[in-house]
Amino acid sequence: MKVIIVGASGTIGGAIEAELAPRHEIIRVGRTSGDFQADISDTASIERMFEQAGPFDALVSAAGSVHFGPLADFTEAQMQIGLGSKLMGQVNLVLLGLAHVRDGGSFTLTSGILSDDPIRSGASASLVNGGIDAFVRAAAIELPRGVRINSVSPTVLEESMSVYGPYFRGFDPVSAKKTALAYAKSVEGAQSGQVYRVGWARQG
Amino acid sequence: MKVIIVGASGTIGGAIEAELAPRHEIIRVGRTSGDFQADISDTASIERMFEQAGPFDALVSAAGSVHFGPLADFTEAQMQIGLGSKLMGQVNLVLLGLAHVRDGGSFTLTSGILSDDPIRSGASASLVNGGIDAFVRAAAIELPRGVRINSVSPTVLEESMSVYGPYFRGFDPVSAKKTALAYAKSVEGAQSGQVYRVGWARQG
Repeated sequence: MKVIIVGASGTIGGAIEAELAPRHEIIRVGRTSGDFQADISDTASIERMFEQAGPFDALVSAAGSVHFGPLADFTEAQMQIGLGSKLMGQVNLVLLGLAHVRDGGSFTLTSGILSDDPIRSGASASLVNGGIDAFVRAAAIELPRGVRINSVSPTVLEESMSVYGPYFRGFDPVSAKKTALAYAKSVEGAQSGQVYRVGWARQG
Repeated sequence: MKVIIVGASGTIGGAIEAELAPRHEIIRVGRTSGDFQADISDTASIERMFEQAGPFDALVSAAGSVHFGPLADFTEAQMQIGLGSKLMGQVNLVLLGLAHVRDGGSFTLTSGILSDDPIRSGASASLVNGGIDAFVRAAAIELPRGVRINSVSPTVLEESMSVYGPYFRGFDPVSAKKTALAYAKSVEGAQSGQVYRVGWARQG
């Protein structure tokens, strides 16, 4: 298969490439690196990337930023960062990618555990992740030509704990390598409309 | 208690008022009707409403619009309708209302069953509802001064079936009157971070 990885230079993106590259043709997309460049918060930039990359069998997105900050100080502008990037950036990869994905192809987006297991300063991330998972469930029943869609919702990554550890006390982190398996299941399996929860071990 | 109902002129808003008015002081807010006016897609309009309404004990929102349309035709601009109105409109009622809500007060937002039980043409509604519920779970753990937050997630209303029935075949509708009970539970109870699912009867 020809697989586009958006966010290929990230920790998860790199692990997805390592998992899929032995079996598939990989097209790496990054904001400033990779085979092609795209800023997912800019629809014109996404369109240009799809024109350059050509028809594909699977698009995997592990891209998008979100602002973290205390709820009491959160501004509309800070909320818009996550809405425009991780949420609508990934949704637009689907809406615009539909014209380029081959019959029976797939989209795999990235959400995260904060949708259901929140932390301080994470209200925007929670909102964005919940929106992505719900969009995936809805889009799955309308996609034409056998095209599928799933999301991968990991807990915090082992590789992120040195930086984000203080925000995620008590969370049991998962490796990017293990997280990447969920993307392979989405790309190479036959399920659609699923949220693959990786490393969720809620105490509640 | 002094309870602000945003969307008071709507079907759910009217039922909430009927449920709460015998026990509480009700402030009705509508886009063009009510005691005070607010367009929740406009933060300046929300700010002005809060200045006029003064300190309150509970804010209940049953407001916000979303565009419905086939996924294959959905545009960025159509997605922005729900993002700016039902999603961020309600989130901004919380972010901006925090300066006006009394200690121990509450916010109650409205999402809906499409977050988990999607229909054709409803991808934006699903995304928005999923985002609201996740935001509520996250905001609940950061709200100061004993302030609480919940969402009410109804299935389709009996009162809406004459118009929306063809989109909701097989759904078991619920009355606005019964739906309003969930808002009373949120306002007059002590729970926080909850999604009150009204009339959910998933076959899956």
